Amino acid sequence: MSNPSPNFEEIYAFTISLARRAGSMIKASSSSRSSQQTSTTADATKKNRVDLVTETDQAVEKFIKEEISTKYPDFLFIGEESFAGGEVVELTDKPTFIVDPIGTTNFVHQFDHVACSIGFTFNRIPVIGVIYNPFLDKLFSARKDHGAWLNETTRLPLTHPHPLPLESLSDAIIATEWGSDRSKRAIEGKGKTFMKLAADGKEIEGGVMAHALRSIGSAALNYAYVAAGQLDLYWEIGCWSWDVCAGTIIAREAGAKVYGLSGKGGKEFLPEDLMDHHFFVIRAIGDTPTEKGSDAQDRIAKQFFNTVENWE
Amino acid sequence: MSNPSPNFEEIYAFTISLARRAGSMIKASSSSRSSQQTSTTADATKKNRVDLVTETDQAVEKFIKEEISTKYPDFLFIGEESFAGGEVVELTDKPTFIVDPIGTTNFVHQFDHVACSIGFTFNRIPVIGVIYNPFLDKLFSARKDHGAWLNETTRLPLTHPHPLPLESLSDAIIATEWGSDRSKRAIEGKGKTFMKLAADGKEIEGGVMAHALRSIGSAALNYAYVAAGQLDLYWEIGCWSWDVCAGTIIAREAGAKVYGLSGKGGKEFLPEDLMDHHFFVIRAIGDTPTEKGSDAQDRIAKQFFNTVENWE
Repeated sequence: MSNPSPNFEEIYAFTISLARRAGSMIKASSSSRSSQQTSTTADATKKNRVDLVTETDQAVEKFIKEEISTKYPDFLFIGEESFAGGEVVELTDKPTFIVDPIGTTNFVHQFDHVACSIGFTFNRIPVIGVIYNPFLDKLFSARKDHGAWLNETTRLPLTHPHPLPLESLSDAIIATEWGSDRSKRAIEGKGKTFMKLAADGKEIEGGVMAHALRSIGSAALNYAYVAAGQLDLYWEIGCWSWDVCAGTIIAREAGAKVYGLSGKGGKEFLPEDLMDHHFFVIRAIGDTPTEKGSDAQDRIAKQFFNTVENWE
Repeated sequence: MSNPSPNFEEIYAFTISLARRAGSMIKASSSSRSSQQTSTTADATKKNRVDLVTETDQAVEKFIKEEISTKYPDFLFIGEESFAGGEVVELTDKPTFIVDPIGTTNFVHQFDHVACSIGFTFNRIPVIGVIYNPFLDKLFSARKDHGAWLNETTRLPLTHPHPLPLESLSDAIIATEWGSDRSKRAIEGKGKTFMKLAADGKEIEGGVMAHALRSIGSAALNYAYVAAGQLDLYWEIGCWSWDVCAGTIIAREAGAKVYGLSGKGGKEFLPEDLMDHHFFVIRAIGDTPTEKGSDAQDRIAKQFFNTVENWE
């Protein structure tokens, strides 16, 4: 049975409104928490030391889920908290919202880079995405074939319609995260890769001396900043569909290219990659007299994958 | 000859006004650059690949320097660009402004964490500091014995007068930066330390599994966020007095403790540490029934120094 096309325009407007309302909840909860001088330890139930779930997290996801099921009772829902609560997660062709209510770790510490991320897939492809940071009041959004936007008025990338050139990794500002998998394999793989990205190639073998490495602790916002052109690329192993679903369509609509596990072989992002945990995104690159921007994206992505220690 | 005490209240108001005006210059320059779609490569003269100096950097430092010398002709000035231009840098007991006009790397990429940092020392002690991020419109400021403030109205830390408790490094959100020294020694020392901070101690020897590691690429803003309590601690090797002078007084006035090279031996920040390149700052910690906050600061600082691979 084929799925009739939903009204994407309406869903897009609904999603933006929903993200703003969820953002208001998040901000109000943070203010209330501040005024109670609650400790981070007392406020959160620990899954392990780096994977905290706050009450707010659950309350915001519940709110979003209920708003969606009231408006679109037939649509499916995948969310971080529902998954943590034991729900089965399988992506189908049906219209599906994929939601991370809050970037929990930053939220616990009141570190500004907190976002509510709401993505929407149809036929397993992200077609609508909204990422809202209520603390900095930045809303990133996109709808397939209608561009990516900051606060609904500024087209992305910020230099649209002229993406900046990018010659190589050594000119790039790169987002990476240590993440919540703190096993020897994960940390050594990431650590060695980060060192090669940072190091002068004359000093450490394989060093590419990237211009800068950044870690703001939010996969969703890393995608949004790559879409904006404020970060050149973002590499991640270990996050989930709800971290990247909205970011994927926002980045793509801003001219970025996304890759999954098979990216090392040159394949672009496949539907099944969304439910995997390997993600790489590179911003739109402007054409130069000698190279098309899309070729530069592929070339620099390849250079990056050759630097990564532990992609598989 | 002893130095008569300057009018700190007046200098504080002047410094806040100066930082705001410099911030406006920075923001205007960024907008103008965006609209010209200038490439990062063409816009900047490279010292090396990770240490860019833009025209704006120099123009803003020139503006700040001239404003200061007009208002306070007898005061001394230490600035990043003046130093790069060959000026001798020596800290004396005289009233001295110590200035980083712009966080250049983030500015080049239009990454939001850009700040103008203006510190002021008397008898070699930072006594006034202002850090202004014009893109997020956050101004952090402090004057000795008069507290630290966000946007002149919100006392820091954000939970003032009740700093949050902090049990150990495993609960901490820690700021670290890869920095611009990309030699084997610097990168391996940092990389190994970062891995120990991130890793589960059962998986990698010495691992403390910090709650989170963050790198926003601005020493000044890292100090400001530690003052606010949004980051728990910040460790740095390789930055300069102009990166940390304002941050030092802002952090201290918010109850944070700062350390320099001799911090590993338990000594608090000494006047000579300001002109060195080893910095560590830990936020105000609330008392618990079993431990005073200042003791917790020393205990966690010691735990941190024991984890660092390359402090000396």
